[in-house]
Amino acid sequence: MPQPATATPPAFVTADPTWADRVRASFARQGAMATLGARLAAVEPGYCAIELTPRPEVAQQHGYVHAGVIAAIVDSAGGYAGFTLFPADSSVLSVEFKLNLLAPAQGERLVAEGFVVKPGRRLCIVRGEVHAEDRGRRTLVALMQQTLMVMHGQPDP
Amino acid sequence: MPQPATATPPAFVTADPTWADRVRASFARQGAMATLGARLAAVEPGYCAIELTPRPEVAQQHGYVHAGVIAAIVDSAGGYAGFTLFPADSSVLSVEFKLNLLAPAQGERLVAEGFVVKPGRRLCIVRGEVHAEDRGRRTLVALMQQTLMVMHGQPDP
Amino acid sequence: MPQPATATPPAFVTADPTWADRVRASFARQGAMATLGARLAAVEPGYCAIELTPRPEVAQQHGYVHAGVIAAIVDSAGGYAGFTLFPADSSVLSVEFKLNLLAPAQGERLVAEGFVVKPGRRLCIVRGEVHAEDRGRRTLVALMQQTLMVMHGQPDP
Amino acid sequence: MPQPATATPPAFVTADPTWADRVRASFARQGAMATLGARLAAVEPGYCAIELTPRPEVAQQHGYVHAGVIAAIVDSAGGYAGFTLFPADSSVLSVEFKLNLLAPAQGERLVAEGFVVKPGRRLCIVRGEVHAEDRGRRTLVALMQQTLMVMHGQPDP
Repeated sequence: MPQPATATPPAFVTADPTWADRVRASFARQGAMATLGARLAAVEPGYCAIELTPRPEVAQQHGYVHAGVIAAIVDSAGGYAGFTLFPADSSVLSVEFKLNLLAPAQGERLVAEGFVVKPGRRLCIVRGEVHAEDRGRRTLVALMQQTLMVMHGQPDP
Repeated sequence: MPQPATATPPAFVTADPTWADRVRASFARQGAMATLGARLAAVEPGYCAIELTPRPEVAQQHGYVHAGVIAAIVDSAGGYAGFTLFPADSSVLSVEFKLNLLAPAQGERLVAEGFVVKPGRRLCIVRGEVHAEDRGRRTLVALMQQTLMVMHGQPDP
Repeated sequence: MPQPATATPPAFVTADPTWADRVRASFARQGAMATLGARLAAVEPGYCAIELTPRPEVAQQHGYVHAGVIAAIVDSAGGYAGFTLFPADSSVLSVEFKLNLLAPAQGERLVAEGFVVKPGRRLCIVRGEVHAEDRGRRTLVALMQQTLMVMHGQPDP
Repeated sequence: MPQPATATPPAFVTADPTWADRVRASFARQGAMATLGARLAAVEPGYCAIELTPRPEVAQQHGYVHAGVIAAIVDSAGGYAGFTLFPADSSVLSVEFKLNLLAPAQGERLVAEGFVVKPGRRLCIVRGEVHAEDRGRRTLVALMQQTLMVMHGQPDP
């Protein structure tokens, strides 16, 4: 069975040695992540994971995690995956994203992951996946494709 | 200057006289909307508006409303726009949506609106817009295109 | 019934008086449009229409116009809608687009229209619609949302 | 470096032993593929590849393969990837797709691949990639995310 070429992300080269600190500081400033109870789970060059515990406060009408909350954590995961590769004096902006919802989001933990597919000087293309974990089982609940913009000369405050 | 044909939405015919009550009851069950401080602002056949007051608890790292929070309110607005046209014994599911972010979301009030473009027996296609209002000025901050699924025989609990 | 704010596109201001000639010359260089039998039907500031006659050479397996052919004409219509507003020494690039297929594309004529929603210095956001015309009846067959890039300093050859 | 879980597609189980013949027969009926000069390159359960030789007849204004032509081959590749898993008395319909263009499409050969991510009874979610091959080098030129519908009881003619 053929494999997607994007299966094995390339080894990305960072432009600024403080990439991990910059991502952590920026994430900490996102009030929305705190309100939703989302936590930064992992950050590597071209990669970021954000986790969330499903609970009624982030649910839609059937008790599953709301599609918009899934969007929020995977948009941030994608944005910070890209941000790891940006230069020091820049910030990151989501131009657009597209999200497919594949299965009800429930269980012990949601993990949203962003994977840079193509970094660029101005735009950066990212893929995202959200998995629900429950009693040792992992289910893909959402799939994302995202465009980021590198805001040169506009570092985070 | 030509106008989009979708500019004037058709006069939709509802399938169930309790559509407004069903939307209100379903919205009230969305814990995520309460957590974000979103309120149901209007509901009409094929249309729904949800409002949100920008504040640090729903912000991203620069203080603007987080793209995922924008996604959450416009996904719900779109979903309920569609739901007004669904039969009584059904519920609504977001299959996918695509969101473009056009301007920083800030000001006194955000209004997310969903407009049904094409209702169908199984799928329903919806457009969404999010505007920021500030001192009498209205700015388009996001544009959405969404696919809903009609879940026949599976009414909300 | 509320109307989308994007219903009435603003009166756009062009940056270069030769916008119509530039679009026509660029369209004429698109070999793919000639191969598909697509014709430039109208161009105005922030707007472009491209038409196509449905026939077996552009069909999918059931005889309707192929989704990819619909994508081709509405991507070009959107791109040239944006291009009318770009400066003289620039060219246009599609960053991404999203297309919903709403009904079988058949009949006497397809018309793909692009409407600029938000022009910008680097990016330009466009909406697209494709209608099928048949015996005086018009059916919306596809809906698009698109991001263009302004390639400054890189005019068409 | 973490890998996307969708990197290794599952071993899909087909519902109908004639899946390969059905795909080939359906592809042969797509007049648009013949007009564009696209060829079926490979088909496996949950996977399909379509190839195209870049040439002026499928180009946009700068001589690269038109985004809409890229859309056409990757939409077909995705659709047939899904179709391999559909039951015998069904056909396939593209509900929507989203395409990011990553690099100019040029070279000796374009290969569009569709990979099923999640098959379902009614909907099927597919990822797509398009690579350009030139003198032994492979460049990712486009990335797609697609929703298909299973049309039960409506086999191809």
